[in-house]
Amino acid sequence: MYRTHTCGELRIQNVNDTVTLSGWVQKARNLGGMTFVDLRDRYGITQFVFDMESNTELCEKARKLGREFVVSITGKVAERQSKNDKIPTGAVEIIADDITILSKSAIPPFTIEDNTDGGDELRMKYRYLDLRRSCVRENLILRHKMGIEVRNYLDQLNFIETETPVLIKSTPEGARDFIVPSRMNQGEFYALPQSPQVFKQLLMISGFDRYYQIVKCFRDEDLRADRQPEFTQIDCEMAFVEQDDILDTFEGLTKHLFKKLKNVEMNFKFPRLDYADAMEFYGNDKPDIRFDMKFVDLSVIAKGSDFKVFDEAEYIGAICAAGCATYTRKQLDALTDFVKKPQIGAKGLVYLRYNEDGSYKSSVDKFYGEEQLQKWAEACNAKPGDLILILVGEKAKTLPQLSELRLEMGNQLGLRDKNVYAPLWVVDFPLLEWDEDSERFHAMHHPFTSPKKEDLHMLETDPGKVRANAYDLVINGVEIGGGSIRIHDTELQARMFKHLGFTDEEAQAQFGFLMNAFKYGAPPHGGIAFGFDRLASMFAGIESIRDVIAFPKNNSGRDVMIDSPSPIAEAQMVELGLDYRKKLK
Amino acid sequence: MYRTHTCGELRIQNVNDTVTLSGWVQKARNLGGMTFVDLRDRYGITQFVFDMESNTELCEKARKLGREFVVSITGKVAERQSKNDKIPTGAVEIIADDITILSKSAIPPFTIEDNTDGGDELRMKYRYLDLRRSCVRENLILRHKMGIEVRNYLDQLNFIETETPVLIKSTPEGARDFIVPSRMNQGEFYALPQSPQVFKQLLMISGFDRYYQIVKCFRDEDLRADRQPEFTQIDCEMAFVEQDDILDTFEGLTKHLFKKLKNVEMNFKFPRLDYADAMEFYGNDKPDIRFDMKFVDLSVIAKGSDFKVFDEAEYIGAICAAGCATYTRKQLDALTDFVKKPQIGAKGLVYLRYNEDGSYKSSVDKFYGEEQLQKWAEACNAKPGDLILILVGEKAKTLPQLSELRLEMGNQLGLRDKNVYAPLWVVDFPLLEWDEDSERFHAMHHPFTSPKKEDLHMLETDPGKVRANAYDLVINGVEIGGGSIRIHDTELQARMFKHLGFTDEEAQAQFGFLMNAFKYGAPPHGGIAFGFDRLASMFAGIESIRDVIAFPKNNSGRDVMIDSPSPIAEAQMVELGLDYRKKLK
Repeated sequence: MYRTHTCGELRIQNVNDTVTLSGWVQKARNLGGMTFVDLRDRYGITQFVFDMESNTELCEKARKLGREFVVSITGKVAERQSKNDKIPTGAVEIIADDITILSKSAIPPFTIEDNTDGGDELRMKYRYLDLRRSCVRENLILRHKMGIEVRNYLDQLNFIETETPVLIKSTPEGARDFIVPSRMNQGEFYALPQSPQVFKQLLMISGFDRYYQIVKCFRDEDLRADRQPEFTQIDCEMAFVEQDDILDTFEGLTKHLFKKLKNVEMNFKFPRLDYADAMEFYGNDKPDIRFDMKFVDLSVIAKGSDFKVFDEAEYIGAICAAGCATYTRKQLDALTDFVKKPQIGAKGLVYLRYNEDGSYKSSVDKFYGEEQLQKWAEACNAKPGDLILILVGEKAKTLPQLSELRLEMGNQLGLRDKNVYAPLWVVDFPLLEWDEDSERFHAMHHPFTSPKKEDLHMLETDPGKVRANAYDLVINGVEIGGGSIRIHDTELQARMFKHLGFTDEEAQAQFGFLMNAFKYGAPPHGGIAFGFDRLASMFAGIESIRDVIAFPKNNSGRDVMIDSPSPIAEAQMVELGLDYRKKLK
Repeated sequence: MYRTHTCGELRIQNVNDTVTLSGWVQKARNLGGMTFVDLRDRYGITQFVFDMESNTELCEKARKLGREFVVSITGKVAERQSKNDKIPTGAVEIIADDITILSKSAIPPFTIEDNTDGGDELRMKYRYLDLRRSCVRENLILRHKMGIEVRNYLDQLNFIETETPVLIKSTPEGARDFIVPSRMNQGEFYALPQSPQVFKQLLMISGFDRYYQIVKCFRDEDLRADRQPEFTQIDCEMAFVEQDDILDTFEGLTKHLFKKLKNVEMNFKFPRLDYADAMEFYGNDKPDIRFDMKFVDLSVIAKGSDFKVFDEAEYIGAICAAGCATYTRKQLDALTDFVKKPQIGAKGLVYLRYNEDGSYKSSVDKFYGEEQLQKWAEACNAKPGDLILILVGEKAKTLPQLSELRLEMGNQLGLRDKNVYAPLWVVDFPLLEWDEDSERFHAMHHPFTSPKKEDLHMLETDPGKVRANAYDLVINGVEIGGGSIRIHDTELQARMFKHLGFTDEEAQAQFGFLMNAFKYGAPPHGGIAFGFDRLASMFAGIESIRDVIAFPKNNSGRDVMIDSPSPIAEAQMVELGLDYRKKLK
């Protein structure tokens, strides 16, 4: 037997018990004639004592243990003279009387401590060692608990977890598919699912009523920071529901998770914001509403004073930063530099200080008198001591620039507290968005999203104006989930495919089975999907989703630990009937 | 709002409530001036009544409803005059006063009833309609519940569910991998996992201690009946354990599932049988021990009577079928035909009737006297009235033939009751098996399985004799799960790879990261994987795993509903740098 207890288990009431523990040597130190060994496992750390005088041989053996050796030690539990309050086992130590080395260890390439000296690359390569660090392991245990709580909540609401296939069919719409060549059907391919979208809709047509799945999805996209080619979703669908039913159900899930995982009670209804308002007031379809600082449109009142930049601008937008009138020239210059960064791209920044004494000072004093500046301040609801920041230009470009500036001011004012959670439903997304490259409309959400009934008449005449029954859950400016009420009617679905540029043949070849399914009695239905990785990283209080994935890939989609992707044997290519387009070096 | 209640919810105490239900029209019938509509959803069936006299317009609308129309009906709950005891809602009906058609239905290609008229192919093509049948849906709900109970049991034992990657690395060992071409790293490929084997071992090295995952796995094999290219496993691993710890833990899981899903109490320790004994006494490494009928080796006592067939045989094996001495000539001929079927391949069958009156009658009376036949009967522990059946030949070939005969006799004697469950651990599997084709040893389980310490000395001298710390859970003759204690030592692992014909370079290229991980302190560990689909089909009491999979593939690995695999766009091939070996037609 390798152990009677774990390394996190022994307490003062175990004193005099004879126990055996197994684990990794965290550290060993000699003090006079004694040797102390800290043994670590997933559950904690326990201290062992070896006495050179009373048991020389054993103590010498202990002195030869290196860090990360795996050992099994037997001994008697004793009360510690100097207790360690920081760990739950700190009241006891074990007087060792036998030790078995189960496995030796070379010196690890980085220290196995929360504060490690290992860089990102090294830790990715030796991920199995990185996972030994308790801070990393705790993230994955949190992820595990999140899975339990998601299932608890949905199971109790009669959702059925149903596995959908991983080997499916490639579709041209949306992001790029990973494909899987078929050996038994040479020249044909499976694709890995970007989401189980069509299958969950079919389950609704099958009468499953409430479906969910915690499921791996795949996208072969050029990886931006913090995207993974394989990622996990909480995928859900409900039948005989309207948008409110779904929002209520998953608002409930969100509250349940916050309560269970963070002990945060959210005793309020999540606010809802139209997409149009989100763009108008925050320049962003996932606004961080931990703080207000809404945009104010000065386009009307700030024109007509012969200041060409303003007069010619399509849009003049302002935010009011409370208490920032004291910002120095240097601080204002830094903000100007900030908005001029290439990834933001503003041409400049106009400021207006509303000083504590009631006076105004702005960077455009030349063109505007006090009375005019006062009007701006009033429009912005500014108080003495506030600072108004203004960006101008094409509206579509200026809104996101102002959004970045708003978030930056939120940071500077400490308004984006990690321990405050501000959930928000963004609703009424546009159904379609214009794609400049292909010069046609794309589905903003996906081609199965239903248009709002009251906007349906514009589908042919003004498609960009049609709103969808689509919604996103946003928390602290991060998109956590999104979904829609689906089309459940063959004709409307066919009309949608036509608008998205599918020929009848293409629509039939790709989605014929779904359109066919609609013919046999499809219930109204809708659903949502949450980013499991993103949600887990939020609960863990970390930025990157990588840290909540056991074996993540790097930004080139490579698993540097196992060295994958990698070449395959020529015989495998032959079996699949495939060849390389260019000869490999 | 589409519904106030489900179709399985209303009871006598709801009488006079005004309710709205939504669902599918199961059937409609006219009786005098009344029309009765049965509305179905996942939860049940409720009867609606339309009265031609009191509400002509509505009743006429109801009479136009076809099967599988999706409707929402409002009305008042009333007590039924002739109650239907067969369904929970049978005490009430709803007097309809409004009806909304949500979706029409064409006539379905087969009837949506438990006893459907649809054939296999048709039901696969219209799987979304097949899933409407309550018997099919119940299988998937059972599967869902199985998932819940697996997780309940393992969560409570501190197992951490950890997702391992789906895009991994191709390995030449074992079954064929599905591969996924990488676009970002042209000429390189991911592979889909046949199991998360290496990752779960790495998690043990990481100190996760107890891991599990309900996980999709993939094998690109020529599909036999009832194999799927993608299948689901309950995959588990534990550190600091010996074989008994694992067997006990997962015996516990099995008992928990039987209790929760079948209300079957298994208040006994599962029997354990050596692989060698399983082969010797049942001719099979997954014996059905719902009945005894062990093999008796007559090779010694039945020789030396100038019956050439026996004298020259390597092996003479017998089974004793209780009470079958009354078998007629015709029945015995049928058994002879059975064992001579090509897939079984015996040359003939020898029988020995031990008649009720104590006399003997056998097909080899010419060569053997009563005294000799009596000896056989004694060896077989036969009683008057029993029938002894004997097969002879090469031992390795005869054992499986006798196994088939034993199972057939079990069937004929009604000894294989579907409602009796006989679990069994088969242990001490051989480490290696000889492969005729490649003329080398293969790992019987996989290359990470540890040899038994006491057999290790034979690894170089008599590798076929070395037993492994490997075990299978068998229930009613079906392999439900299997696993092993793993190697956790670099040198032994390297020695194993050498025996399996890997060069050092190959071992390093394929499993270098694992061998490297062993260098940093690997704990003793082992695990098991259960076939989730197989287990679900056993609990559902059905033969095929297809029926517990929402969207299964057919025997050619094809999803006939979505028509996959399928050709992809040339542009996709170009992006991946791939071409076809032969030009496609």
